[in-house]
Amino acid sequence: MGEKEKGFGGKREGGGGNTGEDDVAFKVLFCGICHSDLHSIKNEWGMSRYPMVPGHEIVGIVTEVGNKVTKFKVGDKVGVGCLVGACHSCDNCNKSLENYCPKMIFTYGGKYYDGTMTYGGYSDSMVANEHYVVRIPDNLPLDASAPLLCAGITVYSPLKYYGLSEPGMHVGVVGLGGLGHVAVKFAKAFGAKVTVISTSPAKKKEATEHLGADSFLVSRDQEQMQAFMGTMDGIIDTVSAQHSLLPLIGLLKSHGKIIMVGAPDKPLELPVFPLLMGRKLIAGSCIGGMKETQEMIDFAGKHNIRADVEVIPMGYVNTAMERLAKADVRYRFVIDVENTLKKE
Amino acid sequence: MGEKEKGFGGKREGGGGNTGEDDVAFKVLFCGICHSDLHSIKNEWGMSRYPMVPGHEIVGIVTEVGNKVTKFKVGDKVGVGCLVGACHSCDNCNKSLENYCPKMIFTYGGKYYDGTMTYGGYSDSMVANEHYVVRIPDNLPLDASAPLLCAGITVYSPLKYYGLSEPGMHVGVVGLGGLGHVAVKFAKAFGAKVTVISTSPAKKKEATEHLGADSFLVSRDQEQMQAFMGTMDGIIDTVSAQHSLLPLIGLLKSHGKIIMVGAPDKPLELPVFPLLMGRKLIAGSCIGGMKETQEMIDFAGKHNIRADVEVIPMGYVNTAMERLAKADVRYRFVIDVENTLKKE
Repeated sequence: MGEKEKGFGGKREGGGGNTGEDDVAFKVLFCGICHSDLHSIKNEWGMSRYPMVPGHEIVGIVTEVGNKVTKFKVGDKVGVGCLVGACHSCDNCNKSLENYCPKMIFTYGGKYYDGTMTYGGYSDSMVANEHYVVRIPDNLPLDASAPLLCAGITVYSPLKYYGLSEPGMHVGVVGLGGLGHVAVKFAKAFGAKVTVISTSPAKKKEATEHLGADSFLVSRDQEQMQAFMGTMDGIIDTVSAQHSLLPLIGLLKSHGKIIMVGAPDKPLELPVFPLLMGRKLIAGSCIGGMKETQEMIDFAGKHNIRADVEVIPMGYVNTAMERLAKADVRYRFVIDVENTLKKE
Repeated sequence: MGEKEKGFGGKREGGGGNTGEDDVAFKVLFCGICHSDLHSIKNEWGMSRYPMVPGHEIVGIVTEVGNKVTKFKVGDKVGVGCLVGACHSCDNCNKSLENYCPKMIFTYGGKYYDGTMTYGGYSDSMVANEHYVVRIPDNLPLDASAPLLCAGITVYSPLKYYGLSEPGMHVGVVGLGGLGHVAVKFAKAFGAKVTVISTSPAKKKEATEHLGADSFLVSRDQEQMQAFMGTMDGIIDTVSAQHSLLPLIGLLKSHGKIIMVGAPDKPLELPVFPLLMGRKLIAGSCIGGMKETQEMIDFAGKHNIRADVEVIPMGYVNTAMERLAKADVRYRFVIDVENTLKKE
């Protein structure tokens, strides 16, 4: 990391200059550090490929467009999230759910259409097919927008899909990290009553006063938990550590939904009887499709939703990774690529 | 069991004769033996109350109606399932989801509005509030209808609620017992392609030739399972023994749904990552509301769906329980109450 690399996510043939005909080239200004970057660089999921340039929360300014590009022009504020390709012919692709396409190509560590590796946004430039590029609303600062391209869409998509974006819902958010803190903001913007559920009492003030949550539950406090039993329409569970689902199921109303967006590496215990008795469900959700990612960032622009970020220089990235492993960040590191990536 | 008991599920005050004004009294002709009867009589769920008269798949002929009863008259073919009461004022009750009402009263072993115990259908007569009585379609035989009042609605309701009743769905059914065999029949009647998944290769012929399933998978056969990966829109999982969810999640298409209708007494292992990658979900479902129970039995009448039953005399009930514990029945014991319950 920290070396000069050219992010590459686009077809090269037939474009003007170095840029493929459907591709958008942009100068990377900021790139968020997602927790999955940490897993990936350490190969904790066993599927990493090296050399690796991490980063899938990438924003910048368009420098060149291919001659068939219609949506973007030089100077536009754009971003690329977790995806740079998919098959464009399967059922999921036909519904703009490229994120569930079996041939979906990750922004880094993936194999591109032409067989080359994809490289991410810890990099001074990026090229991607315009289908995978989103426009960043003018009123959003670029540094605080970057994490929305992964963390934002990861929580926005299930809130919409599972009907939790209807006004008046009571939405629980488990875990107050990169995903959790934007989940609170989106749910509030949708008109929900939001309760944060956390192991850490120290986060209460932050959750309610700064992020705007309506209430805060310490998950280990039986009395607090008991008082909220049967009150929630849905819960966004962002925790990737082992944890118990039983109390969360108890917090749900009948027909309530727990949506897992964190990925514990070992199976969780699933008590079935409590699911049956209230027709409750536990679901997974993974980022979102390109159409919805644009919708999410437009919604963020309209409601002035931004991630809370700690902007760091590229030279700090290894320290940031160590702090991230200890959850010592409020709430997302974002690398100031433009000003701190050493040009050679 | 086997003694003469009077099933009692209705208000007594103000009616004509012995029957409460909103109550329907009927002579019990047949009563199915549900697997939960076995759990209940042995207090395996720790909430049994004695004396107990089990039975919640009850059909018979109306003998008397209260003076405010509008839906039924003497001589009608009727049935009572798992419920005989609820609060009638909560959100669930307002949607005719009495089965999810927190004050729902079970047909037996429950506490009725007046504080008395409720007694089930292993009995020569039954009284219930008309709201909890369903009309049995004329073309259905009563013995083969009885199990629909529990097993039938238990699988019908989630097929509808989770969108698996749309024509052209591919529905998996795990476990071919009392619930599973009617799940196959309802799913086929909805126009689904149905695949039975079972540990027992011996059930293949029965599943495909007799019950009409389109295919049969032996869950331990890796090759067969592999061939069906990613093909199913939903799975009705009727198994209450410990079992692995991972291969079932693999059988689902993206956005597919596993609906648990059996209740394993210990938690199952829930692998989260495979849920995330395909936006899949695992849900519970528990019987159904009264409106839907009538809809289910009307649908069964229209499509000539009946449970496959082994009709037994009351004197055989203890032996039947032993055989049921070994899953030695195709597929539901039904007690011939009218002809075999000794009158004293």
